Amino acid sequence: MRLRLDLAYDGTEFHGWATQPSLRTVQGLLEGALAQVLRLEAVPVTCAGRTDTGVHARGQVVHLDVEPESLAGAAGRSPVPPVDALLRRLNGVLPDDVRVRAARVAADGFDARFSAVWRRYAYRIADDPALVDPLARRTVLAWPRRLDVDAMNAAAAGLLGEHDFAAFCKRREGATTVRTLLDLRWDRDPAGLAVATVRADAFCHHMVRALVGAMVAVGEGRRPPGWAAEVLARGVRDAGVTVVPAHGLTLEEVAYPDDADLAAQALAARRLRSPAGAHDG
Amino acid sequence: MRLRLDLAYDGTEFHGWATQPSLRTVQGLLEGALAQVLRLEAVPVTCAGRTDTGVHARGQVVHLDVEPESLAGAAGRSPVPPVDALLRRLNGVLPDDVRVRAARVAADGFDARFSAVWRRYAYRIADDPALVDPLARRTVLAWPRRLDVDAMNAAAAGLLGEHDFAAFCKRREGATTVRTLLDLRWDRDPAGLAVATVRADAFCHHMVRALVGAMVAVGEGRRPPGWAAEVLARGVRDAGVTVVPAHGLTLEEVAYPDDADLAAQALAARRLRSPAGAHDG
Repeated sequence: MRLRLDLAYDGTEFHGWATQPSLRTVQGLLEGALAQVLRLEAVPVTCAGRTDTGVHARGQVVHLDVEPESLAGAAGRSPVPPVDALLRRLNGVLPDDVRVRAARVAADGFDARFSAVWRRYAYRIADDPALVDPLARRTVLAWPRRLDVDAMNAAAAGLLGEHDFAAFCKRREGATTVRTLLDLRWDRDPAGLAVATVRADAFCHHMVRALVGAMVAVGEGRRPPGWAAEVLARGVRDAGVTVVPAHGLTLEEVAYPDDADLAAQALAARRLRSPAGAHDG
Repeated sequence: MRLRLDLAYDGTEFHGWATQPSLRTVQGLLEGALAQVLRLEAVPVTCAGRTDTGVHARGQVVHLDVEPESLAGAAGRSPVPPVDALLRRLNGVLPDDVRVRAARVAADGFDARFSAVWRRYAYRIADDPALVDPLARRTVLAWPRRLDVDAMNAAAAGLLGEHDFAAFCKRREGATTVRTLLDLRWDRDPAGLAVATVRADAFCHHMVRALVGAMVAVGEGRRPPGWAAEVLARGVRDAGVTVVPAHGLTLEEVAYPDDADLAAQALAARRLRSPAGAHDG
């Protein structure tokens, strides 16, 4: 029996998603909470996007496999459905910087990682002292110079579509860096922040933050808009591309196909990307 | 020479606005930073709304009086105007949970407290587990039961206007509790949170949080909408009115009249309210 959990977390106090010995990670805490609530030795989970240290999530998705008896046992005599009881008990055990926002029995063929058709991230920048809100300082990068959103959008247009994003990725042995960038655009939100919406079938390691770093170089006027596409075409890391700080980045949403297409999507994604290739952010 | 500063702060780590010996307060930190930057012994400031422990601000306003020579000295050889140099240097000295968002020379007759014509607060509640966002947990109250916003608005309608709000205030010797409530309404924000907008000429101590507590009792169905106006009319604290937690409350905006009317407004407000009566939130 496979369950799907939707998670949100404040990445500030986490050493990223993936379990690491003796470090506070989201996966480590979640698996510990599941083991406690389900009274099992270990409950491995698989996530849609393995966020780095300091990166936040509002729309992280995970799956886990569990025996129906364990789930029923965890629910106890609760009058609500077992998955709802599980959600409540998990949130009772977890610290308040990570919340399970939904729990449900997954459709056949669902795989949090390989069934996903796209991931959407947001990167938020306050590029004026008057925009810096201490109430948002954990999720917004304060930048000392004004950014030209139109110039950044002009640069972004040259990066959309399927490309080898090696120039914007931390290389991993045996992993492809070909991705399809579906959206990369900058808007001013109602408060005046510069917000990037970055959506792709998947991301390689550091890709969003390197893309944003390249856009910022353009937005400041240090590089012309066409430079970003030139870097992409060269296919090697460029010293002009800075990986921007993690705390401005949030995994906002992961999309899945209709239930009937889950297994086919998972099969296609497994073929396309090596098992080590889905590290996000 | 009088300066106006616009401030924002995350109240989580502060023991409120007002200076208290050996406690971390916004006033204490700000006056310390001003003394350091202006190289003076003490720089007393006056604020528009003295927020309680844990209450946040996006639109706090303060004034301070300074000799032009001190301001020029603090600016040093900076090429920007002295108030802009002061803003930069203050933000360099202050911790990142309090930011000066604007600094300017105040118009004649300006008094951050007595010239204000109204203060506007917001109170934010996530009344469903699916709405609880760990990235907003410092500024949003998580409430375990759904709230009926229409019922809360019906209750609010009976409280608008000029009344003696003694039933919703922590009483202070010699201070009037007559206030003019200009707005009290609930909306769902785009994320689905229940957000109260509370605007009045001024507030007495605990008034916003007691008003919100009364609305929540109505929103849950524990009390009928007409009950709030009954409590108001009785004029004494009611055991059914809970003062909700501080962290959901943010001082969003303080409004001032046109420059020509600043002094007249200050005079009128001084007559209306005793010096001890403007404690907000």
